[in-house]
Amino acid sequence: MAELFDSTVYADRLVKAARLCRVRGLAGLIIGTGPELAYLTGSWVSSHERFTALVVPAEGTPVFVVPATDAGDVARSAVPRLDVEVRGWTDGQDAHALAVAALGETGPVALGSSLTTLHVLDLQRKLAGRETVAAATTLKELFMRKDLAEVEQLYRAATAIDRVHERVPALLRVGRTEAQVAADLHALILKEHDQVDFVIVGSGPNGANPHHSHSGRVLGLGDVVVVDLGGTRGPGYHSDSTRTYVVGGVEHADPAAVAAYEVLQRAHAAAVAQARPGVTAESVDQAAREVITQAGYGEYFIHRTGHGIGLSTHEEPYIMAGNDLILEPGMCFSIEPGIYLPGRWGMRLEDIAVVSDTSVELLTRHQRDLR
Amino acid sequence: MAELFDSTVYADRLVKAARLCRVRGLAGLIIGTGPELAYLTGSWVSSHERFTALVVPAEGTPVFVVPATDAGDVARSAVPRLDVEVRGWTDGQDAHALAVAALGETGPVALGSSLTTLHVLDLQRKLAGRETVAAATTLKELFMRKDLAEVEQLYRAATAIDRVHERVPALLRVGRTEAQVAADLHALILKEHDQVDFVIVGSGPNGANPHHSHSGRVLGLGDVVVVDLGGTRGPGYHSDSTRTYVVGGVEHADPAAVAAYEVLQRAHAAAVAQARPGVTAESVDQAAREVITQAGYGEYFIHRTGHGIGLSTHEEPYIMAGNDLILEPGMCFSIEPGIYLPGRWGMRLEDIAVVSDTSVELLTRHQRDLR
Repeated sequence: MAELFDSTVYADRLVKAARLCRVRGLAGLIIGTGPELAYLTGSWVSSHERFTALVVPAEGTPVFVVPATDAGDVARSAVPRLDVEVRGWTDGQDAHALAVAALGETGPVALGSSLTTLHVLDLQRKLAGRETVAAATTLKELFMRKDLAEVEQLYRAATAIDRVHERVPALLRVGRTEAQVAADLHALILKEHDQVDFVIVGSGPNGANPHHSHSGRVLGLGDVVVVDLGGTRGPGYHSDSTRTYVVGGVEHADPAAVAAYEVLQRAHAAAVAQARPGVTAESVDQAAREVITQAGYGEYFIHRTGHGIGLSTHEEPYIMAGNDLILEPGMCFSIEPGIYLPGRWGMRLEDIAVVSDTSVELLTRHQRDLR
Repeated sequence: MAELFDSTVYADRLVKAARLCRVRGLAGLIIGTGPELAYLTGSWVSSHERFTALVVPAEGTPVFVVPATDAGDVARSAVPRLDVEVRGWTDGQDAHALAVAALGETGPVALGSSLTTLHVLDLQRKLAGRETVAAATTLKELFMRKDLAEVEQLYRAATAIDRVHERVPALLRVGRTEAQVAADLHALILKEHDQVDFVIVGSGPNGANPHHSHSGRVLGLGDVVVVDLGGTRGPGYHSDSTRTYVVGGVEHADPAAVAAYEVLQRAHAAAVAQARPGVTAESVDQAAREVITQAGYGEYFIHRTGHGIGLSTHEEPYIMAGNDLILEPGMCFSIEPGIYLPGRWGMRLEDIAVVSDTSVELLTRHQRDLR
């Protein structure tokens, strides 16, 4: 069971959600299970294919529509201490109609991110031609801008993963396999978190594939190793941080890698310098990409610069080309440029940033040199 | 990596999908990642929030839209041996527009089950007012009716879980905990499958909660124990089977439980007898429910009678009140009535059934007595 914030935190968020609906002219929200539901109520209830949703009308009491058999799980969230009506449904009842009935009769409706095709199409049918919009983008103040309680949790997750990275150099010894190192890191992450999200140990050529997790490859002297680690803690907030290491010390590394890493650090710094309220998400991607491209590595930076993070590991704002979303205070995301030379090595430098009133603050603070 | 069928199996399915679209007057399908994609191409590629979809137009070549960074994963499916065009996209390109462009310019479009709100709404925007329907229900011949290759895989999964149930009685000894038994079962399932889906060991009062997995509760003489097991094997097909046991032998059980189990067996048999082509899914639920209700246990049968199974553990057809879907040959689902007495015990009897031309055949065949 994930921890809960004090119930006043959720009560405030529900009030804010309804207020935002009024300001945007929406009839309300229909939020499925997952991070958005946990954000609003503390509930991680899962009901598989059966429809579960929190309905927040612009005016009136929120309604939690849930299969009757799952109502017990809802009781373990903040819901019993909130002004939320729980409405259990059983097979034969039309759960989507129950949700729509909890909203006012006119106006567009915002739908949560986790709803899948069958639910979206049936809700649209029950809404009989009313407009539907994505809650994640239409209500970005709610889901993208983290409040202080959330930033504190992300900070705790960041310091937890910093402590794990401190232990990495001692684990990367010549003759060990990536899988052995990964097993140790798994245990270290669990000491600092409630759950391991992923462990990437990409040595030598394996590091050039950003999707690599770990393998039986044996570490050799001078191997460049990408170590990307993440876990979940507290009420469900995620850590995510990458550092690049050299087995046996930087003096044994391919000099081309050392030169590239210097470029990577400048790209990271350029993205950090660009990120602030009022600029687009894509401009932060461009800032990092420009440095790498000018140094001649452009074709080897094969992914976006970052992703939002909070109660999910990947969420808006995505720091990528084509995303003209304007950054605002409280938005949290990774900054993680990388350079990947196929067949040789890969490198990535990843921190979690939170947008302040004027710039960004990095929550992960483990030292950023190649070592 | 899951096994693949021969590529002709997928080629046939793609031809059948396009043909069904023409018969139904659809422009085509847009299928997201997951079981439906695996069914059509053998690909279990996952691209997180990034849009990946197979587009099957009613006329012309299917197009696999995938982030360029994930194209390598697609190569490990049957796609390279199929007449499918792979179109990689990078940040800044409009992936949803790419998918829509692969379809003809008029006619409704069927959307796969796994697509989530942001994708569904943006695809609808790009389709500019054209109707969208759910592929899972509109093309049930494709996704609900299993072909012989699939039924064979489900049969193999069923016999695998039968072999695990054979070993259960020896594990349920007085003084062991549910968790110890579950750990043994975990290992036994892995011997017979590629992956463990779930292990439920619900003894005494814990069995009365169908959501219970296992706990530190110590087994006592005469405890009624619900054991529900499932795993994944082959190209991704699932097993799922429940038996109810008594620790130390039936002679030590609560006589009320023995009497209730006799009712449960009759309910199971009634559902099996009702299930055949041409009847509704809900009529099978009613058949089981009627037996249990007439015996006075109606309020203790708190869930639906069954769920479809294939490349996902829970899918259509759902055997439940309100589902007027007509059963057809090749549909596969569980039949699993249960009786749950809060604070005392629970019991469930679950087999996997496939609809034949005239009745159903049970794929799981482990003996069905309480023991």
